[in-house]
Amino acid sequence: MSTHLNVAVAGASGYAGGEILRLLLGHPAFADGRLSIGALTAGANAGSALGEHHPHLWPLAERALEATTAELLAAHDVVFLALPHGASAELASALPETALVVDCGADFRLADPSAWAKYYGGAHAGSWPYGLPELSGGREKLRAARRIAVPGCYPTASLLALAPAVGAGLVEPDVTVVAVSGVSGAGRVPKPNLLAGEVLGSLAPYGVGGTHRHTAEIVQELSARSATPVTASFTPVLAPTTRGIVATCTARTSASAEEIRAVYAKAYADEPFVKLLAPGKWPSTASVLGTNIAAVGVGLDEAAGKLVAVSAIDNLVKGTAGGAVQSMNLALGWAETEGLPVIGSAP
Amino acid sequence: MSTHLNVAVAGASGYAGGEILRLLLGHPAFADGRLSIGALTAGANAGSALGEHHPHLWPLAERALEATTAELLAAHDVVFLALPHGASAELASALPETALVVDCGADFRLADPSAWAKYYGGAHAGSWPYGLPELSGGREKLRAARRIAVPGCYPTASLLALAPAVGAGLVEPDVTVVAVSGVSGAGRVPKPNLLAGEVLGSLAPYGVGGTHRHTAEIVQELSARSATPVTASFTPVLAPTTRGIVATCTARTSASAEEIRAVYAKAYADEPFVKLLAPGKWPSTASVLGTNIAAVGVGLDEAAGKLVAVSAIDNLVKGTAGGAVQSMNLALGWAETEGLPVIGSAP
Amino acid sequence: MSTHLNVAVAGASGYAGGEILRLLLGHPAFADGRLSIGALTAGANAGSALGEHHPHLWPLAERALEATTAELLAAHDVVFLALPHGASAELASALPETALVVDCGADFRLADPSAWAKYYGGAHAGSWPYGLPELSGGREKLRAARRIAVPGCYPTASLLALAPAVGAGLVEPDVTVVAVSGVSGAGRVPKPNLLAGEVLGSLAPYGVGGTHRHTAEIVQELSARSATPVTASFTPVLAPTTRGIVATCTARTSASAEEIRAVYAKAYADEPFVKLLAPGKWPSTASVLGTNIAAVGVGLDEAAGKLVAVSAIDNLVKGTAGGAVQSMNLALGWAETEGLPVIGSAP
Amino acid sequence: MSTHLNVAVAGASGYAGGEILRLLLGHPAFADGRLSIGALTAGANAGSALGEHHPHLWPLAERALEATTAELLAAHDVVFLALPHGASAELASALPETALVVDCGADFRLADPSAWAKYYGGAHAGSWPYGLPELSGGREKLRAARRIAVPGCYPTASLLALAPAVGAGLVEPDVTVVAVSGVSGAGRVPKPNLLAGEVLGSLAPYGVGGTHRHTAEIVQELSARSATPVTASFTPVLAPTTRGIVATCTARTSASAEEIRAVYAKAYADEPFVKLLAPGKWPSTASVLGTNIAAVGVGLDEAAGKLVAVSAIDNLVKGTAGGAVQSMNLALGWAETEGLPVIGSAP
Repeated sequence: MSTHLNVAVAGASGYAGGEILRLLLGHPAFADGRLSIGALTAGANAGSALGEHHPHLWPLAERALEATTAELLAAHDVVFLALPHGASAELASALPETALVVDCGADFRLADPSAWAKYYGGAHAGSWPYGLPELSGGREKLRAARRIAVPGCYPTASLLALAPAVGAGLVEPDVTVVAVSGVSGAGRVPKPNLLAGEVLGSLAPYGVGGTHRHTAEIVQELSARSATPVTASFTPVLAPTTRGIVATCTARTSASAEEIRAVYAKAYADEPFVKLLAPGKWPSTASVLGTNIAAVGVGLDEAAGKLVAVSAIDNLVKGTAGGAVQSMNLALGWAETEGLPVIGSAP
Repeated sequence: MSTHLNVAVAGASGYAGGEILRLLLGHPAFADGRLSIGALTAGANAGSALGEHHPHLWPLAERALEATTAELLAAHDVVFLALPHGASAELASALPETALVVDCGADFRLADPSAWAKYYGGAHAGSWPYGLPELSGGREKLRAARRIAVPGCYPTASLLALAPAVGAGLVEPDVTVVAVSGVSGAGRVPKPNLLAGEVLGSLAPYGVGGTHRHTAEIVQELSARSATPVTASFTPVLAPTTRGIVATCTARTSASAEEIRAVYAKAYADEPFVKLLAPGKWPSTASVLGTNIAAVGVGLDEAAGKLVAVSAIDNLVKGTAGGAVQSMNLALGWAETEGLPVIGSAP
Repeated sequence: MSTHLNVAVAGASGYAGGEILRLLLGHPAFADGRLSIGALTAGANAGSALGEHHPHLWPLAERALEATTAELLAAHDVVFLALPHGASAELASALPETALVVDCGADFRLADPSAWAKYYGGAHAGSWPYGLPELSGGREKLRAARRIAVPGCYPTASLLALAPAVGAGLVEPDVTVVAVSGVSGAGRVPKPNLLAGEVLGSLAPYGVGGTHRHTAEIVQELSARSATPVTASFTPVLAPTTRGIVATCTARTSASAEEIRAVYAKAYADEPFVKLLAPGKWPSTASVLGTNIAAVGVGLDEAAGKLVAVSAIDNLVKGTAGGAVQSMNLALGWAETEGLPVIGSAP
Repeated sequence: MSTHLNVAVAGASGYAGGEILRLLLGHPAFADGRLSIGALTAGANAGSALGEHHPHLWPLAERALEATTAELLAAHDVVFLALPHGASAELASALPETALVVDCGADFRLADPSAWAKYYGGAHAGSWPYGLPELSGGREKLRAARRIAVPGCYPTASLLALAPAVGAGLVEPDVTVVAVSGVSGAGRVPKPNLLAGEVLGSLAPYGVGGTHRHTAEIVQELSARSATPVTASFTPVLAPTTRGIVATCTARTSASAEEIRAVYAKAYADEPFVKLLAPGKWPSTASVLGTNIAAVGVGLDEAAGKLVAVSAIDNLVKGTAGGAVQSMNLALGWAETEGLPVIGSAP
């Protein structure tokens, strides 16, 4: 890999693609010439200017979107894939092994072919290192990786809230997650249920009863850190806001509040992007919008015999594009925190 | 009680008070002369016109708000109390026993003085019939009652989702509820965290870890229908919308999907305001806004071993004012459904 | 026409169609049997149940949507057309002359073929009585009409704010209107710019510079009431809310505040659906949502030499479905106000 | 003034204060040590931690808010005043002449004592250089200034849209501005009309008829650039979003579209923060949120004989804190663009 890296973004007209570009434009490596922004590709939007889709990215307004082809992407050192689920696998196989490929889709997140079959169907493409450095063992797998699977936004929020407790055996291996999310996580393809007229003023659970695809990721990663397999009840709820996920996670525990606190404090003591709130404090998405931060609150509900952990992330940053850049930084041997905002924007 | 009933609303400038008035204005008994709208009272807003606070209630725009006093209220046949928690008890004691008093506050919801002490503090005023007719045995207690405690909005949503399962012994007596709500449930007193600048764009859990007061009601009413005491982990989440609550409720079960369905179908077969959705369908608040309907979806998450029940209500209608009017109808011997909207308004 | 009227709604799965059904379900003529709800038709959504599209219309949830054909519609006494612009003309020509046809589209609003050609293109279908009874001479044309063109939502708001001043010659015949609107006026066809991700958090003018089609209606109806032709600068702005239009209208005047007030007071003294606010008061959409009311504030900006009139309507009620039902009532010889809500819902 | 500058922010717990801090934290001068963040002061919030009010400013979460006193502020090289209108004057007089004082309030914006008396009342404190560098002659007055009055948010939007046309004599000296704004411009003091329950779902004009205080600024600055005094009809409209202003501005013109375009192109050719959109394009706030950019669209409405100019800004950035930092940069002799975001965040 050359010392100057040319970066392509496939799916640049979508929300995840736009957010990757926002972060790259503000990355010190862009300013100091270590990386440049190469091809920006799209599907139906190929041929139009990026500014038609992301008018907020003023410096790139005139850049033309090209059609997404393996040939075009292959000419880059780093390729971000921000494509519909299922579109990455074939494309990725045609990219050089020396290129760093960071996939924001689901294609390479699941190790278990039967889980893939159950939730996505079709051929299982395999699995890549899972781009959540904060998980135990997660960071090591990403250093010098050439292929990275960026976690789903809900799993990112859920795992950061629950992994310390599950990993330390503090809770029964049976968790419940209800995660409220803004609409950008559902992507930018016009669908009736994503119209503003439908979303504004409504609170809408979906994928209830274990049918949401992200359930498999949560189960996989928690089980990997548990003595016994973990079951998870996961329910996402769509709310009328553009960004942000807040995940309320519960599990039975017989641990004390102090034990719980100690485990989380240790787990996140040195994590640059996880903010463990003081006891009795709980995060809202307003505190993390625009940043790569995951804010986590945790406590004991004594009467109910439950550990309660709440996490808040920006689904497009820590939940997608920020996680992708963080993993890129690790894979390239750069400082993990480079180019990742920790100062939010509110209100 | 006279055949023509004069109705007072205490706390008429707040959101609950305004919604009670909206429903009374549309009630057939208002049109046919069985009831009239008497005194409208307020605290700090006394002296101003109702239209200053509820410009949408055009027919009452010029009505003056009077100070809330027991003397004034005592001259009415029906009194709705829509006051801050703790304000109803003293007032209620000064009202004639023959008057129908419907309290939208918490003062008379809890039977257990220790639960009251834990969650509210101060003297426990006692308990009144609980205004949720759909609970087993609930309707009977309300017929001809002269004192009614309207349930909290979160308990209404939670209980309608969970009571059939708990009552039938389908689930372990340990439930988890995460309920997302619009802001009107928090009332109209200006507080920094309720400013539009804070609420818009944010998703904010609060009262996490069993500290929200409505936990006690949920535990009380579920336990009353369970062979063994029920524990409940309850977490409310504030979302940027004005109205609506959607409660996602889970509990461990070994029942089959068919058993679950049968229990809920039987429980709600004749309920005019509960709509049990078809298997695989889940309610959103958009379908119930403005109505007294609770839409309930229920199913089995086999992999997680959980019953999942989701309910959606309009917190100001079925969750407060509609529940209050429904109970009033029962107490007065009128048709239970009179004046209660079942046609919503969307988008 | 029979004394029992069967009513069809073409375009029933859209927002305007849904709102017409909401109003019909609450119409006294539906309760007392003067009208029944017949065929509900749709385009791409034909074959599905109405409840899939309007879950808030609980009583009609199971009704099947049929394909929109002239033959089917022709079997009804009253036909509401809530179709994309341009779709009504051919359909209408195939309906019996005895049927009452109320078109919510633009096809028959403009009398001037050149205005039609400029703003819509294609063949000009002609013009029908304009369904805004509050305009001078407007009500008379609607009585016993068999064909009615429902005004656009922006023209309804603009004309109710400006027509009295223009009609009385209080202002120069040159008006400026900036109207802020919720998204439901743009319809329910999924388009990228109507996605919640695009609308939430943004304020977006469109059709600027006289290019919005509703300009022609505003000019036509104001000019019809003016001694000299009127010019209008009209700018719509899309805002993140579902319903409501607030139109700020200005025009040069040399009239006094008292003269202005007198003209508006007289114009709206007997109008059941126009609320003229007290001097110094200005309407917000929150006061009219769900109702057929247009709230109007008017005053003099002395320093600027301008009359300022502000109107607020619910674009789906007074601006579409309510206006349509109001006109239907007139055409059928029923009380004009029947079935039209004047009590709003807030917050 | 020392080469290392210590900066104080008075009113740090409010929205403007928080946004100033957001920008300072990202300013290169903060990173390279040219400036440090000194005292953060507040009124009623003094004594609490900044993180209680601005949880998104993670690096400053533990900083304590001190009481706002002239003595404390006087120990700083640069003082930002983000206080309620009327609070700056006395405070400013007690600060050393050598300190750079940037006032985000209205106290020193108006040169005419009678305009001050009409709109604000009380003693007129005088006027300071007006912090809008893009106005003709504006930049020069700010270089090396020690006192700067930051413009109001609405005037910033209105003047950037209209000043080129007025300055070039393209339009009659009589303008109409309707500006739609998010709620953050109204500040953070809890008031009933700013509650989320009131703002969500409503569109609300206020200060109609020339009564809004910002009218005076618009008239002052346009008149200063016009051969004859300018009159302005200004109407603000509150919309349910946190940030952003879009101003629709019209004035009679006999200029051609080409003449208009030429004037604006010349005026903004070298402006780093004004983006003149291509003919037929109009800005939305989504394109500028988080940035110091003003996006301007301009065109001719031939039929109406009007120039129409639309501007979009982030009221807290270009409209307040960004404008303040831009002026600070100029006054300190730094590059004008330092630390001011031009890459937005969307959706």
